[in-house]
Amino acid sequence: MGIDFTVFKGSNTGDIVEAKGHRDVGPTQALIELTHSGVCGTDEHYRHNDQGLGHEGVGIIREIGSMVPQISDLKVGDRVGMGWMQKFCGYCKPCMTGQHFKCQNSEQFGTANLDEGCFGTGIAWDVSALFKIPDEIDSASAGPLMCAGATVWGPLYEHGFKAGDRIGVVGVGGLGHLAIQFANKMGMEAVVFSGTESKREEAFKLGANEFHATKGVAELQGIKPVDSLLITSSILPDLSLYIPVLAPFAKIFPLTISFDAMPVPVLPLVLYGYSIVGSGGAHPQSVKAMLAFAAKYGVKPIVEKFPMTKEGVIEAMKRLNDGIMRYRGVVEV
Amino acid sequence: MGIDFTVFKGSNTGDIVEAKGHRDVGPTQALIELTHSGVCGTDEHYRHNDQGLGHEGVGIIREIGSMVPQISDLKVGDRVGMGWMQKFCGYCKPCMTGQHFKCQNSEQFGTANLDEGCFGTGIAWDVSALFKIPDEIDSASAGPLMCAGATVWGPLYEHGFKAGDRIGVVGVGGLGHLAIQFANKMGMEAVVFSGTESKREEAFKLGANEFHATKGVAELQGIKPVDSLLITSSILPDLSLYIPVLAPFAKIFPLTISFDAMPVPVLPLVLYGYSIVGSGGAHPQSVKAMLAFAAKYGVKPIVEKFPMTKEGVIEAMKRLNDGIMRYRGVVEV
Repeated sequence: MGIDFTVFKGSNTGDIVEAKGHRDVGPTQALIELTHSGVCGTDEHYRHNDQGLGHEGVGIIREIGSMVPQISDLKVGDRVGMGWMQKFCGYCKPCMTGQHFKCQNSEQFGTANLDEGCFGTGIAWDVSALFKIPDEIDSASAGPLMCAGATVWGPLYEHGFKAGDRIGVVGVGGLGHLAIQFANKMGMEAVVFSGTESKREEAFKLGANEFHATKGVAELQGIKPVDSLLITSSILPDLSLYIPVLAPFAKIFPLTISFDAMPVPVLPLVLYGYSIVGSGGAHPQSVKAMLAFAAKYGVKPIVEKFPMTKEGVIEAMKRLNDGIMRYRGVVEV
Repeated sequence: MGIDFTVFKGSNTGDIVEAKGHRDVGPTQALIELTHSGVCGTDEHYRHNDQGLGHEGVGIIREIGSMVPQISDLKVGDRVGMGWMQKFCGYCKPCMTGQHFKCQNSEQFGTANLDEGCFGTGIAWDVSALFKIPDEIDSASAGPLMCAGATVWGPLYEHGFKAGDRIGVVGVGGLGHLAIQFANKMGMEAVVFSGTESKREEAFKLGANEFHATKGVAELQGIKPVDSLLITSSILPDLSLYIPVLAPFAKIFPLTISFDAMPVPVLPLVLYGYSIVGSGGAHPQSVKAMLAFAAKYGVKPIVEKFPMTKEGVIEAMKRLNDGIMRYRGVVEV
């Protein structure tokens, strides 16, 4: 048994490289025949590394390890999504106090080996970070939920926000267009900030309650304060622009991977109790809740599809880089 | 009745100005004969304003307003501390959901009028922000607890830290020397970071478990990660120095008032779930818990005393500015 697979990797030169691999199943693993993967800005960050790309994978379980029946309900034939940030060790302090989502041994982006990735046709995955996809969600939609969805769901679901709270969403892209939908369906007000007016209409269709264009605006004024700010833009905004529209104790989540430092004005932080909260994804139980919620309320990404080939991967990554993807690319076998 | 008082104010030129005032009691107020006030770095920030200085006041209640018996246990003769940041309105959303400490109408530093301050001999104060001082705490020690104490207690008491957690304390000064004591008595490990070795011995006497000098250190290494970092130094440190010693999901509290922006590295925030949490003081119930705790466990500031005169105020502020106060100045009538 085991699984033979094709995988698309980064390389020193930034070229996408097609490679072959094989996995036998480990005792707590499942072998998955991949069918789809979302395409994320983070993939670009790893493009110059010799490692498999893609981390929003969905597929069908073809084989399970010997211990899986004791630790999981997952079976051969199940359609599952791969959680890249939801693995946990079970023996560190957070894991032993019920806080698996704070696992100190969960290396982010480290649940797969470097010669695997979800841009491919098969993968081995620990069942602790595999999530059954509800029937209502098609696989192309499920892919982006695994990372982009979890990234915006985590702040909304895990940080004490309530119906009626005002959620600022900075940027309408792969993350932002899901954040608007989730916030709306969770009974919160989605207050969208976008560079230009170009996405105004679509933002309202997605469920926005307000839309504010920020380009050339020196100071945001006359906006009812927001309780949270989800920064989903690919470039970090000037935080001082948003300080005047924050409610006391607002939580600011920079959600996109950035290698830059963000200048944080300290005085308003101390005076008004704002927090800058680092959040990478969502914890395992939270991902389950997200999938059930998305299934029930019809939250789904707007996707552009590309073939799971070298050319398909290159084209998808190019459209994302060019800033013209509406709103999430998905490669499919 | 009412109270006549002397107050020491800032001025355009930065000179300390002595002024006189009178207050009649409001229905929810008490009139307090001041005996002591701590001296805080924040006073320096207001020195060039035409306003009363001092916000760590302690004194004796001489008169109470007509409504006070219905809303408070406070009586004439009680020894009380003034909470500068604990006032709440009672009718905003946070107040009406039991979160008075998030009151949206509590203007920081706004509980007194500009012609009042705790550098003085008397003041009128709303009883919602008055705290009875336990008998075990002398008034000179109580003053600094009202701001410096509350500032370090808030993060330790209100943000989910537990016995055994490792609390990094950056800076051993007015705030830091109280943070070390509180952390130690709360059963946490106090991990002290100080510029030079000069305060090592004293830090251990205060209850430090570890002491690390940071001057000239390019990278902190070999230190067991800390769950929190209380930044109590008058100058903001380079955060990147401390990233390697943060445990996953560590909370960083910049506690001193700074008009600078702090560059925050976003990537580790997202990957490891760190937060930068703005915290100004402690909420009212938390201040009560702090005073009871300090009384029971003997937590008290190390103070230098100065007379409550124009010269005394000037001398105290000078020693603080020169960085030689050990560790908190108190002016006393």
